[in-house]
Amino acid sequence: MTKQPLILVTNDDGINAPGIKNLIQAVLPYGRVVVVAPDSPQSGMGHAISINRPLRLERLDLFDEWDVETYQCSGTPVDCVKLAIDVIFKGEKPDLCVSGINHGSNASINVIYSGTMSAAMEAAIDGIPSIGFSLLDFNYHADFTVSRYVVEQLVSRVLGEPMPDHFLLNVNIPKVTLEAFRGLKICRQADAHWTENFDERQDPRGKNYYWMVGRFVNRDRGEDTDVEALKNGFASVVPVRIDFTEEFIKTWLENKWTAFR
Amino acid sequence: MTKQPLILVTNDDGINAPGIKNLIQAVLPYGRVVVVAPDSPQSGMGHAISINRPLRLERLDLFDEWDVETYQCSGTPVDCVKLAIDVIFKGEKPDLCVSGINHGSNASINVIYSGTMSAAMEAAIDGIPSIGFSLLDFNYHADFTVSRYVVEQLVSRVLGEPMPDHFLLNVNIPKVTLEAFRGLKICRQADAHWTENFDERQDPRGKNYYWMVGRFVNRDRGEDTDVEALKNGFASVVPVRIDFTEEFIKTWLENKWTAFR
Repeated sequence: MTKQPLILVTNDDGINAPGIKNLIQAVLPYGRVVVVAPDSPQSGMGHAISINRPLRLERLDLFDEWDVETYQCSGTPVDCVKLAIDVIFKGEKPDLCVSGINHGSNASINVIYSGTMSAAMEAAIDGIPSIGFSLLDFNYHADFTVSRYVVEQLVSRVLGEPMPDHFLLNVNIPKVTLEAFRGLKICRQADAHWTENFDERQDPRGKNYYWMVGRFVNRDRGEDTDVEALKNGFASVVPVRIDFTEEFIKTWLENKWTAFR
Repeated sequence: MTKQPLILVTNDDGINAPGIKNLIQAVLPYGRVVVVAPDSPQSGMGHAISINRPLRLERLDLFDEWDVETYQCSGTPVDCVKLAIDVIFKGEKPDLCVSGINHGSNASINVIYSGTMSAAMEAAIDGIPSIGFSLLDFNYHADFTVSRYVVEQLVSRVLGEPMPDHFLLNVNIPKVTLEAFRGLKICRQADAHWTENFDERQDPRGKNYYWMVGRFVNRDRGEDTDVEALKNGFASVVPVRIDFTEEFIKTWLENKWTAFR
């Protein structure tokens, strides 16, 4: 009998979010599942790590019925992955890390702000094939049917054969029924950004404070982007890099800035 | 008389760090300077944003002697940039954003964890040419002579002519004297990562907690990396991308995963 794959599950919405429960159920048939997730919602934490405060890690019996080992952590999504690798696995390398299923889109530039994707990215930096999943539905009672289908499709493929180094996917799932779902599409990240309009208010002592209110602006008209795929009822699959070197500008500078001391 | 360039200065070590004071002094001759920095140290915050809590923004007279408009913000480095653009500049686009000078290296994979670089990245996403500066010296009384020279070299060049879209540089400065300094070198990000060893302790109530203790592991033997340049006494200049699509794996998948529904 061959050894079962070891699958690390995490997220950024916290251990009690419906998204992670659906993700666990979807990956259960594919291996031994260990869950390490934040003890509270961590949306928008990006790649934050806790270097100036200590972390708590606590075993829970939340998913014992499914033979799933579960921990909650007081830190960020990236902290969860670091603790899992060093303290829980003690050097045994998981075969796969899955993160999510996030409540809300992480398509396009959201990959940078997303705790879901940062957790997956952290695992990929350590050489663990990783996938972050997000559903375009903020509703607590969102329907995860299509999402679970997408998870199964991708997890079975990624575990089925060796993947390239630093393999990392940003997967977003449209809010559609299984009947209306058009399939998975490999895409590039749309060139979009958020425009903020801070909502200025006054506290009871007359001092100003600000709530961040963003508007997503997509000027990218390409048909091969994640935003476009989602609009057309596809799940978008964007391979994500961890080498951030911009080669185009690097070459441009090398030609331009000579004799540079 | 032509209009003075508008320069936004921020950091992640907080408004009272010596690094930001040195950065302000170095850019003063090049334009009108506005500072928006966190009111407390924010190291390791990565690209975190505050979506579930309101933000404070307060005018200070810290650098009034130099005619520098200064604000402190209760949020993350990325929050500072977003507030500056919407609340302070109200649509007027800065000509340059500089972040730092960070106390400690942000070379190689540290670009992902760094609040300094995330602030610069946020400005670059919004189309503002941006540079993050870091000095390889954690000492509060670090010598910023070489750093200031590097800032002047780069700021004068970047303001001197149009830069490509989403122009963003990760600049690291070695801990050397001006005499020993070898110059600036355009590099790629070294393929390195952190290996964590969490320091497990017990609180007075007998419950475990963990301190993150990392060890930087660089297996990249290339001579064109930022880590190598710094080792040889150069300041490393790495152009950073905000499109994270991994084209190599994208093509690999497109060839492999056909008939994909």
